[in-house]
Amino acid sequence: MPGMETGTASSPCNPPSVINCIWYDTCGRPRPVELDAISETLRDDPQGFVWIGLYEPDNDVLAKVQEEFGLHDLAIEDTRKAHQRPKVETYGDSLFIVMRTAQVLDERIRYGETHAFLGARYLVTVRHGASLSYAPVRARLEREPAPLALGPSFCLYSVLDAIVDDYLPITDSFRDTLDTLEKDIFAESYRRRTVVRLYELKRDLNKMRLAVAPLQDALAQLQRNPAQLLHDEARLYLRDVQDHAARVNDAIDTLREMLGTALSVNLSLVTLAQGETVKRLGAWAALLAAPTLITSWYGMNFTHMPELAGRFAYPLLIGVVGAACVVLYRLFKRSGWL
Amino acid sequence: MPGMETGTASSPCNPPSVINCIWYDTCGRPRPVELDAISETLRDDPQGFVWIGLYEPDNDVLAKVQEEFGLHDLAIEDTRKAHQRPKVETYGDSLFIVMRTAQVLDERIRYGETHAFLGARYLVTVRHGASLSYAPVRARLEREPAPLALGPSFCLYSVLDAIVDDYLPITDSFRDTLDTLEKDIFAESYRRRTVVRLYELKRDLNKMRLAVAPLQDALAQLQRNPAQLLHDEARLYLRDVQDHAARVNDAIDTLREMLGTALSVNLSLVTLAQGETVKRLGAWAALLAAPTLITSWYGMNFTHMPELAGRFAYPLLIGVVGAACVVLYRLFKRSGWL
Amino acid sequence: MPGMETGTASSPCNPPSVINCIWYDTCGRPRPVELDAISETLRDDPQGFVWIGLYEPDNDVLAKVQEEFGLHDLAIEDTRKAHQRPKVETYGDSLFIVMRTAQVLDERIRYGETHAFLGARYLVTVRHGASLSYAPVRARLEREPAPLALGPSFCLYSVLDAIVDDYLPITDSFRDTLDTLEKDIFAESYRRRTVVRLYELKRDLNKMRLAVAPLQDALAQLQRNPAQLLHDEARLYLRDVQDHAARVNDAIDTLREMLGTALSVNLSLVTLAQGETVKRLGAWAALLAAPTLITSWYGMNFTHMPELAGRFAYPLLIGVVGAACVVLYRLFKRSGWL
Amino acid sequence: MPGMETGTASSPCNPPSVINCIWYDTCGRPRPVELDAISETLRDDPQGFVWIGLYEPDNDVLAKVQEEFGLHDLAIEDTRKAHQRPKVETYGDSLFIVMRTAQVLDERIRYGETHAFLGARYLVTVRHGASLSYAPVRARLEREPAPLALGPSFCLYSVLDAIVDDYLPITDSFRDTLDTLEKDIFAESYRRRTVVRLYELKRDLNKMRLAVAPLQDALAQLQRNPAQLLHDEARLYLRDVQDHAARVNDAIDTLREMLGTALSVNLSLVTLAQGETVKRLGAWAALLAAPTLITSWYGMNFTHMPELAGRFAYPLLIGVVGAACVVLYRLFKRSGWL
Amino acid sequence: MPGMETGTASSPCNPPSVINCIWYDTCGRPRPVELDAISETLRDDPQGFVWIGLYEPDNDVLAKVQEEFGLHDLAIEDTRKAHQRPKVETYGDSLFIVMRTAQVLDERIRYGETHAFLGARYLVTVRHGASLSYAPVRARLEREPAPLALGPSFCLYSVLDAIVDDYLPITDSFRDTLDTLEKDIFAESYRRRTVVRLYELKRDLNKMRLAVAPLQDALAQLQRNPAQLLHDEARLYLRDVQDHAARVNDAIDTLREMLGTALSVNLSLVTLAQGETVKRLGAWAALLAAPTLITSWYGMNFTHMPELAGRFAYPLLIGVVGAACVVLYRLFKRSGWL
Repeated sequence: MPGMETGTASSPCNPPSVINCIWYDTCGRPRPVELDAISETLRDDPQGFVWIGLYEPDNDVLAKVQEEFGLHDLAIEDTRKAHQRPKVETYGDSLFIVMRTAQVLDERIRYGETHAFLGARYLVTVRHGASLSYAPVRARLEREPAPLALGPSFCLYSVLDAIVDDYLPITDSFRDTLDTLEKDIFAESYRRRTVVRLYELKRDLNKMRLAVAPLQDALAQLQRNPAQLLHDEARLYLRDVQDHAARVNDAIDTLREMLGTALSVNLSLVTLAQGETVKRLGAWAALLAAPTLITSWYGMNFTHMPELAGRFAYPLLIGVVGAACVVLYRLFKRSGWL
Repeated sequence: MPGMETGTASSPCNPPSVINCIWYDTCGRPRPVELDAISETLRDDPQGFVWIGLYEPDNDVLAKVQEEFGLHDLAIEDTRKAHQRPKVETYGDSLFIVMRTAQVLDERIRYGETHAFLGARYLVTVRHGASLSYAPVRARLEREPAPLALGPSFCLYSVLDAIVDDYLPITDSFRDTLDTLEKDIFAESYRRRTVVRLYELKRDLNKMRLAVAPLQDALAQLQRNPAQLLHDEARLYLRDVQDHAARVNDAIDTLREMLGTALSVNLSLVTLAQGETVKRLGAWAALLAAPTLITSWYGMNFTHMPELAGRFAYPLLIGVVGAACVVLYRLFKRSGWL
Repeated sequence: MPGMETGTASSPCNPPSVINCIWYDTCGRPRPVELDAISETLRDDPQGFVWIGLYEPDNDVLAKVQEEFGLHDLAIEDTRKAHQRPKVETYGDSLFIVMRTAQVLDERIRYGETHAFLGARYLVTVRHGASLSYAPVRARLEREPAPLALGPSFCLYSVLDAIVDDYLPITDSFRDTLDTLEKDIFAESYRRRTVVRLYELKRDLNKMRLAVAPLQDALAQLQRNPAQLLHDEARLYLRDVQDHAARVNDAIDTLREMLGTALSVNLSLVTLAQGETVKRLGAWAALLAAPTLITSWYGMNFTHMPELAGRFAYPLLIGVVGAACVVLYRLFKRSGWL
Repeated sequence: MPGMETGTASSPCNPPSVINCIWYDTCGRPRPVELDAISETLRDDPQGFVWIGLYEPDNDVLAKVQEEFGLHDLAIEDTRKAHQRPKVETYGDSLFIVMRTAQVLDERIRYGETHAFLGARYLVTVRHGASLSYAPVRARLEREPAPLALGPSFCLYSVLDAIVDDYLPITDSFRDTLDTLEKDIFAESYRRRTVVRLYELKRDLNKMRLAVAPLQDALAQLQRNPAQLLHDEARLYLRDVQDHAARVNDAIDTLREMLGTALSVNLSLVTLAQGETVKRLGAWAALLAAPTLITSWYGMNFTHMPELAGRFAYPLLIGVVGAACVVLYRLFKRSGWL
Repeated sequence: MPGMETGTASSPCNPPSVINCIWYDTCGRPRPVELDAISETLRDDPQGFVWIGLYEPDNDVLAKVQEEFGLHDLAIEDTRKAHQRPKVETYGDSLFIVMRTAQVLDERIRYGETHAFLGARYLVTVRHGASLSYAPVRARLEREPAPLALGPSFCLYSVLDAIVDDYLPITDSFRDTLDTLEKDIFAESYRRRTVVRLYELKRDLNKMRLAVAPLQDALAQLQRNPAQLLHDEARLYLRDVQDHAARVNDAIDTLREMLGTALSVNLSLVTLAQGETVKRLGAWAALLAAPTLITSWYGMNFTHMPELAGRFAYPLLIGVVGAACVVLYRLFKRSGWL
């Protein structure tokens, strides 16, 4: 089952869709808390923040989270339905961020979604569908807790950074696929399979682009967001994530364009090869038509065909036909028809 | 007859094109009113608002509505003529919104229009052509009347939301059509029908895009509209509708692009298959040309053709011709010509 | 002769290129004036305005108009030369507007130009080339003179509205042409004429676009123009004209795109049909090659061909050849080659 | 030698690359001055300005000009090297303008560059490569000296106007070439030359676009330039030049698009014609295959072929073969194969 | 080994990845310093600045540099990893600039990266991968030290200028390649190699564009950067570099477009040539079919074929067949089939 992590075990009895619910104090020290106890913890400790990690939560858990942090109905509704475009929305004093995640499982690209609610003292990350757990991200932060002191916005950066980094192996695999297809296109033999796979690659690229292109805008928007929620240092780091997303986007756009060129180059080469075949067929037909005409000629039944009776007429004919074939063959060979 | 709803029956005697004419007080309680009595109601009750639903109204009804709310000539003119682009216009203290609606009826996409006049204390929705009644929208609001207290702008949101949600099944059906056509394209046999349907799909997509693309701009404009008419909460919800419209737009753009690729992939595959046919024809022709030349040869009437008289000449010839055919067949098979 | 209208006859003796020269008082009552008397009229009546309609005026008339209203040299120069892009220019306290007009005459689209000078108390419209007279526009305004009280900017709106409305039948005719061509493309037979007409339609669309695309920008610019010349009410109406222009533009863009698709669909269908022909030719060739080989075979002159002498050899051969043909025919039919 | 003009002869002994060096007083009266005497003239006469026209000046002349007006190193460097993009740069209190010029010489388009330095009291125009002399521009201004009183910015306008006007005959010639090529495309016979010339036209258009597209931006920038150097009246005139440049740009873009369409239409027509040829070949082959099969049939050597011996067998056969040919011919004719 | 320069030898014992570490006083006099001694030098001499040139530095050197100038973690991280998009980032009081370098080595284009850290009193340039040393740049500045007085931002300009100038020979080589390919395309014979190389050129162009397109934006951003770090004079020079980058970009875009046209022109010409071949084949086949039918005819074994017995039947036949061939040949020649 995806998303079941045990790194920083959530010892308090939370529902199974609550993967993690950890309190970080100002020094970044983690402490698991119960979902129900969050309000009190926030009240008791005026400095730290809580990071809750959910995986496909049911309505009860979402309702509880909404109540604890006073989240907006629309954001909760979006999270419940999933299937959103990457975006950043401001609801009062909290931000709602939607990102598409992508990873390769069993040689197929699987898409998921991660929604995040960012408040001054909380971060709620909600994963849907194919999406790696953010436990490693969390673990890395806990090992080097200095940035945790910057508050939840730095945790958000870490999650976004992990999401965008997950795109890179996919674009690399796209590039490998195109490289393989290029070799097929430039090979001597043409296969339907090559064209079909070019089409499929185009479809995959378009799907990927639907995830990445709006993400770039969303990240730019997030970075420029006037909300006080984002630590200045976190903004610098978000700029870096945006840069990575731009690189993924560049790669996809370039691949899409090369793919279009590959398709038309393939058509050109197929047409070229077809022309070659027609030319060669014609040459062979002409080569065979000459002796056929000659043999047909001497099959005529005229009473007076003096050459038929000659003693060496037949061997002579054999010689003539053979010579004609050799001459024609050389002629065609020289003019590039054979 | 479309648009005849009886949910919240308009008991007062209104013209038939007035589908609904309901007064909502501050608690969202509905009360049917007569079109003629609206001015008095507005005067008597300084808190509530009225929502009038019209279906292809005649000039009299439009003139009455214009008079009641002091609507602008141009907006009324647009409503009378229909066939507008999706847009949002500010006329003094009222907004005029034009949206295109789309729905599938009898397996064909039918387009309609919905015009809305939004004032501080009124909402007039006017449907034209194929357009589902907004009675279910109204009924849902009346069941959970809390948002009705936010005034007519929230009702407008509900209508817009319903319109955009109606697009989704259509783009889904477009996608299904493309999937089917893809299967046809990649099948072994090529059919004219496939190309014709690709063209028709392109036409449908373009028509749909004419409805959706300006809608996205109109919604963005509506949301940023400085008018006090729009409740802040309604703006948040409009952002959500705009997001849905953006998703519909993305889907259409991607489909359009895939369709272009499908057309050129189809051309490539057809050319490829044609080249195969030419190659195979050539090979069979060459295979038959050899025995034909031989038989033609021995049809010659030379007096002295010693091989013709031999006792086993004929069976030998049969063997030679057979062997030649087998050798050629294998040769062509190996080089991929057959 | 185009532009000779007699509706509101210009009784004062003006040059023939002065189609109309009418004074409107604050109640919108028209009164023909002489071109030379305009300055005095403007001085005497501090409220009304004058609307002059010119058709391809000579330099004398233009010079006179320039002098009367103090128009800028550059604008007069543009008007003299015609062949301008649609644009709006501000010269001090007057606006200079250039629009392209289009109308169908003798089944061909003819383009013209209308230039307008708008001042606080005057409107000069100058028509060039194929361009309907604005007399009907003027007549309609004079019948319902209320808007005339808004000043010359409303007259300008009326002229622009008439120009843009004239585009609609042309785009409709383009659409009809494309519909006809689509039928030709999807018909079984392919004709050169279809491709040629697709090309011509593309050329017509491009020409039309050169008229409409900058017009849209010019109208937007006009509407946002800070000059006091434009009555607020007129701005609202200009927005409506801009909307119509946007619709014309949308229609042209969609047609252009469909036309590109139609061209490539046509190529696909032609290639497909060609492949069919090649396949069918090959099948018939193969069908005929078999009996030809057999008859050639029994034309050989071997001394010992026992089957030639048999009593029923010939009828048997007829049967075999017939059977071979039937078998091959069925085989080809089943595999779709015939 | 290009650029050697004698209209307003530069009597003072200036280097040969100094085509003109004229002082204009406030009334626009010209007076040739020596390059070395400019500083003094500027000092002595606090009202007029100088316009220097250079053609491919050497470093000494450029150094002198730089020293006289205190021009910036970078601008001088650009002028020395030429091969710049059209642009407008502000250096302190002077403007540096780079334009591409184009003209047809010996049926080939030749490109040149004109650089201009504009100061409050000077204009230096530097021509490079193929570029008509600006002597006629200067002569026209001197004939009607009123605008010269507006200062050097009006002279700059006159030069820019002349440059942009020189583009128009070139785009016209492009259009003529396309018209000719269209005729070739739609002719019955296809020639390689047509495709090659379409390609060359595309190359020419792209080269032209590299000159015109940035020029449009540069002119817009120049017109909006906040520097006091540009007289308000000159700005109005620059707007006009920008408009002409926009028209040239429109023409090029339209031609580029039509050219792309022409290429694909050509491909369609070639494919169509090829399909026709294949169809016709097939029909003729079938027409000849029938009598060949019959004659081959009666060449068989069966002992018992009763029809061979009949008295009227041969005339009958002639009739049958003739009839078969006529029937097939009609059949093919009717189904459009011949 | 690339990057090992000895011009201004770094006599102090620095790690090998420190190519240069030079102190420039206000007069631009160079003095090599040790990396460890930079802080003191900066403290002691409040006027000059230091320019450090690194080549693929290890973590220790980077850490030292970071410590000396207080550089941001993210920038150091980017420099460590390389493989960045061209960009300009502001970190507090320092700028971080990433550029892609390109040069031709062994007939292949090799890409590298140069990162630069610009502070008020330091410039650190870090080269990665294929990248020419900036020693010549430095040497030129030291020969004419006037600009060095403008501070490190002018050194940065010199480096950027060198990078962009290195692009020009590459776009020139692209243009040469396209010229060669054009000749191949328009040659009579078609080769697969031409299409393959067009594809490879497209791939190279796309790769180059990924380096140049964001660079243009980055340079524009750098030039508008509000930081005090950039001397006003340096900004003017950066504008010049941006202009060069724009020219490189223009060249690449034009090449990309011509390449697309070249591909489709090639397809057109191949199809055209193929059509010619088919036509010619058909004509020859028809030319041979006539005598073959005649000879087949007189091979028939009818008892009564009077013409067979005639004394001059055979010579007559020879004449008839010869005449038929000549007539057909002329016919085909005239109608352009041969």
